[in-house]
Amino acid sequence: MSYKLFYAPGAASMAVHWMLIELDVPFETVLVDIDSSAPRDPEYLRLNPTGRVPTLVIDGVAYGESVAQIMMLAERHPGSGLLPDAGSPGRDEWLQLTIYIANTLMPAMRDWLYAAKDGDPDGAHAVKALAERRIRSVWDDFEKRLSGDGDYLLGDRFGTVDMLAVMLMRWSRHMECAATGRPVLRRYIDRVMTRPSYIELNIREGLSGWPL
Amino acid sequence: MSYKLFYAPGAASMAVHWMLIELDVPFETVLVDIDSSAPRDPEYLRLNPTGRVPTLVIDGVAYGESVAQIMMLAERHPGSGLLPDAGSPGRDEWLQLTIYIANTLMPAMRDWLYAAKDGDPDGAHAVKALAERRIRSVWDDFEKRLSGDGDYLLGDRFGTVDMLAVMLMRWSRHMECAATGRPVLRRYIDRVMTRPSYIELNIREGLSGWPL
Ligand SMILES: N[C@@H](CCC(=O)N[C@@H](CS)C(=O)NCC(=O)O)C(=O)O
Ligand SMILES: N[C@@H](CCC(=O)N[C@@H](CS)C(=O)NCC(=O)O)C(=O)O
Repeated sequence: MSYKLFYAPGAASMAVHWMLIELDVPFETVLVDIDSSAPRDPEYLRLNPTGRVPTLVIDGVAYGESVAQIMMLAERHPGSGLLPDAGSPGRDEWLQLTIYIANTLMPAMRDWLYAAKDGDPDGAHAVKALAERRIRSVWDDFEKRLSGDGDYLLGDRFGTVDMLAVMLMRWSRHMECAATGRPVLRRYIDRVMTRPSYIELNIREGLSGWPL
Repeated sequence: MSYKLFYAPGAASMAVHWMLIELDVPFETVLVDIDSSAPRDPEYLRLNPTGRVPTLVIDGVAYGESVAQIMMLAERHPGSGLLPDAGSPGRDEWLQLTIYIANTLMPAMRDWLYAAKDGDPDGAHAVKALAERRIRSVWDDFEKRLSGDGDYLLGDRFGTVDMLAVMLMRWSRHMECAATGRPVLRRYIDRVMTRPSYIELNIREGLSGWPL
C-alpha cells in the first residue's frame, strides 16, 4: 500500500494527515499552495479537477473528498481502534455522525470561508449568516454529545470523528461562534490537543497558535 | 433485521425507500407530514431531533442522515450489486462519489429549497444563487461521467449513487437549472425511470409528473 497526501497546512487535508499519523503507516506528503491566486498547477488539476486539498493517492490512483479518504483508510486498516469496524457495536452511530459532519458542518464551513470566492461577493454576507447559524447548531449538538459520560464525540474512545471535529473547530477560530468560546467544547479541544499525534501533526504542518 | 422508514413523498427519504425496494427486504413505512407548519410530533422528535426525514429504525434504534442509512443497509446486505462491497474493485470511487453527493449536491439542494426557512428570508436570494451555481457544477460533473461508455454514474451498473442522483435531479424540476434541461442527463433519467423499482417507488410514494 502506498499513500501520497497532497495537503495544505490546516486545510481539509488536516484530518486525513492526522489519521495517517495515528495509523502509523508510511506515507508521503506534497504541499499544495491553495492560497495563491495563480491558477492551480495543471498537473495537480489532473489528480483533482476541483483543485482543492486533500487529494490522497493510493497505489497510484488519486481520490478527492477528505471524508471518503478517511473511509478508504479505515477499510484498509481494520482494528485501528479509530472507529468501529463494519459489523461491530457503534458502527451505525459512527456512520451517522461522519455523514452529518460531511453533510452539515463541512459545507457550512466552506460557505463561511469561501462565500465570496464560490459565489457572488455581494451575496457573501447572507451566505455567511446562514453558515454561522448552522455552525452554532452543530456546536449545540456536539455540546450535548460531550455532556455525557464520554470524553469524545462517540464516547470513551478518540477517533476519526474527533479528528474531523477538531479540525473544523480550529477553522472557527476567527468566527464570533468560535468553538473555544464554549466551555464544554474548549475542554474537549484541550483534551484532544495533548495527544502525541496532534502535536506531531502541528509540527509537520507548521501550525501554532490555536487554541490560545 | 427489522426496518422501519419514516418518510415523506419525494423527500430525502426517497433514495433510502428505493434502496429498500431494490434490496427486496421486508420493511415498514411511516408517513411524516413535513410540509405542515404545525410543530413536529414530539414522538418523532425523540426519534430524530432534527425533525427531518428520513429516519430509519433498525432493530429498534433510530438513525438520521439518508446517506449514512444507505451505508448501513449496504453493510447489512453485501452482494446486493447496488455498490461495490468493501475490498472489491470500484469501492473507493463509490465512496468518493457518495461523499461528494453528501458534501456538495445535497447541501446545495437544502440551500435552494430551504434558504428562507433555515436562514433569514432577506438573505434567501443570495443563498439560492450560490446553491444554483454549485448545482450546475455538479450537473457538469455528472454529464462528464455519463458521457463515457457506462449507462450509470459509476459505469455499467445501476446502484445507490444513481438513486441519490436521480432523487436530487427530481428536486431540481422547478429550477432554471433543472437536470432534465441537459440532454445527457435527460437520457440518463429516462433510462433509470424504466426500472421496476423506480416505478414501484413512485406508486408507493404517490409521485407522478416527473419527468414530463
Ligand atoms: N469536499 C472537499 C472540500 C475540500 C476543501 O474545501 N478544501 C479547501 C481547503 S479547506 C481548499 O482546497 N480550498 C482552496 C480552493 O477552494 O481553491 C473535501 O472534504 O475534501
Ligand atoms: N441530511 C439529512 C437532510 C434531510 C432533509 O433535509 N430532509 C428534508 C426533506 S428533503 C426535510 O425533512 N425537511 C423538512 C424540514 O426541514 O422541516 C438527510 O440526508 O437525511
